[in-house]
Amino acid sequence: MGDEVRSNGNFSQSSGNSDDQSHATVIDIYSLGNYYFGSKEVIPFKDETLADRVQRMKSNYAAHGLRTCVQAVILVELFKHPHLLLLQVRNSIFKLPGGRLRLGESDIDGLRRKLSRKLSADETGDGIGWEVGECLGMWWKPDFETLVYPYLPPNVKCPKECTKLFLVRLPESRKFIVPKNLKLLAVPLCQIHENHKTYGPIISGVPQLLSKFSFNIIES
Amino acid sequence: MGDEVRSNGNFSQSSGNSDDQSHATVIDIYSLGNYYFGSKEVIPFKDETLADRVQRMKSNYAAHGLRTCVQAVILVELFKHPHLLLLQVRNSIFKLPGGRLRLGESDIDGLRRKLSRKLSADETGDGIGWEVGECLGMWWKPDFETLVYPYLPPNVKCPKECTKLFLVRLPESRKFIVPKNLKLLAVPLCQIHENHKTYGPIISGVPQLLSKFSFNIIES
Repeated sequence: MGDEVRSNGNFSQSSGNSDDQSHATVIDIYSLGNYYFGSKEVIPFKDETLADRVQRMKSNYAAHGLRTCVQAVILVELFKHPHLLLLQVRNSIFKLPGGRLRLGESDIDGLRRKLSRKLSADETGDGIGWEVGECLGMWWKPDFETLVYPYLPPNVKCPKECTKLFLVRLPESRKFIVPKNLKLLAVPLCQIHENHKTYGPIISGVPQLLSKFSFNIIES
Repeated sequence: MGDEVRSNGNFSQSSGNSDDQSHATVIDIYSLGNYYFGSKEVIPFKDETLADRVQRMKSNYAAHGLRTCVQAVILVELFKHPHLLLLQVRNSIFKLPGGRLRLGESDIDGLRRKLSRKLSADETGDGIGWEVGECLGMWWKPDFETLVYPYLPPNVKCPKECTKLFLVRLPESRKFIVPKNLKLLAVPLCQIHENHKTYGPIISGVPQLLSKFSFNIIES
């Protein structure tokens, strides 16, 4: 693996004027081919109706208050364009890797735990940790329905769920070991942008949340 | 002016888990009533057809290359909800305050110049500078048409325009002096979000770009 930077792959990065924060706003991305993909035993999903799910969320809220979900934005390069890693459930729903925090768990610890569960060989990971970076955005669910907003809507005093997106930078190589009942996909940003219908509001907004970053495509 | 923080105004801010970057992701916002609004002489606009505009952009591109626009995201509080300051041109088009950089001008200098021209008593400002903060996002125009993308689309080697959005934090009080042919409006984030039809893709995405921030509403 080398570290030569493609001159035409990072055009968008080098055209800017002087920027004090330039170091923090560059993301090194590596080719999909740098990573190994394997599978492991299925992880059980709650098989429940929408009504059951709402009932469960209501009980959880009554017991523990606001639910916090943490999700990872993980990028690889393919055809010189950034691709986002998504998990597909039952050949239909797309999700960012992540999940719900345990009581008292920090965002970062919770996200690392979820990433190991869904993307690593075992719960404790495959020896390479997950580099959880900055929060890119937050979405609020004012009620137990499905609508989410990137702000707390006026007059909402008690939101029911907060979903936080974190940038997770990959090393130049690692193994992804994914449960057999999930499919891991690399989807180009240009396919995701504004594609609410397929990816929902949170995922389809990820290209915008990443737009302040420059992508530094590193060739193997 | 005091600095007491409303306990119910910053709920969204205090519910998070521990976050190393929490200091950088809080925006203090002040009531619209803290600011003075006045008017000044009109500033001339280029009155041209779309075809003329495209021709002008082509000539400029041939002479000077990629065009960079800088725009400001400026917030005030009203009804305990963040509002975005927008300029309205000819009672129809909405724009973020800003404009095109001069040759060799830095993002920050250019944005300060544009803000003074459109929002201050005179070109040199009204004695209070503009605190230009971090870049929130960038949009690329691959060609001289009107479509913009929050990434450089695949196979686009020579984008024609880049629009950069910067967070501009307001002091607790200042004067806005606006040319008579522009209208300055404070529009709630909840009205802007996903409202492409009225505000276009760049402005309607601002609530998402701000979603990682906590708003600290400071009472006067």
